[in-house]
Amino acid sequence: MTGILVTGHGRYAEGVMSAISLVAGDQEEVNAVNFLRGEGVEELKSHMIQAIRELKSRNVLVMVDILGGSPFHVAAGLAAEETGGKNLKIVAGANMASIVQAVFMRDQIPFDQLPPEVAEAGRQGVVDVSAMLPPA
Amino acid sequence: MTGILVTGHGRYAEGVMSAISLVAGDQEEVNAVNFLRGEGVEELKSHMIQAIRELKSRNVLVMVDILGGSPFHVAAGLAAEETGGKNLKIVAGANMASIVQAVFMRDQIPFDQLPPEVAEAGRQGVVDVSAMLPPA
Repeated sequence: MTGILVTGHGRYAEGVMSAISLVAGDQEEVNAVNFLRGEGVEELKSHMIQAIRELKSRNVLVMVDILGGSPFHVAAGLAAEETGGKNLKIVAGANMASIVQAVFMRDQIPFDQLPPEVAEAGRQGVVDVSAMLPPA
Repeated sequence: MTGILVTGHGRYAEGVMSAISLVAGDQEEVNAVNFLRGEGVEELKSHMIQAIRELKSRNVLVMVDILGGSPFHVAAGLAAEETGGKNLKIVAGANMASIVQAVFMRDQIPFDQLPPEVAEAGRQGVVDVSAMLPPA
């Protein structure tokens, strides 16, 4: 099963995963790495390597909270180095819609097609609801 | 100052706000409402009403984790009822990029223009990074 790593600033990763487990049930082969206030980049990198190693699959999709910032830069560095022989792909700007899509689609399509599919689901999931509702 | 309410399943709201405070600093007039396992919809509604009342502005942008689900439906109901005389607008599928945009733009443009602006920033923030990086 393709692995998923969710990472971001503060308790973003932990918070989003608690939401995913309510919406889609508890998930296997998904890890979350927080980057807490006071932690350094080396600490973050070490936590991310550990979390990636724990995932069984060679293929790991890394869902990052925002483009730029330490979680993104560390993930991009690990992807470039093929850390631990893993094949890492990264989607940044994750929301619930993209992570739910990642969870459900990860073994339905080839790994190379997963990031664009997941990113598109994320974009379609951002909705200006006011434009859909009649004025109050 | 336009109010912002972040809400979602589990500890999504709390987690995302901890990330926002690391990326953009602590924010005034922003509240977060979790919908924890075991809580009922009436409890969620009561927490949301309380959080909306605490925000000083008549205009409140509600950022919801995902289209559908209790946080979305409760927020949509409160918007339709103009709860407490507040003018609520909703963006669903929130990610960090959309919330950061909401925080920075909330008093730069008219409130009616804020939800489409915030949703667009959210969509642009979802990036398939693998497509940007050279193969490892």
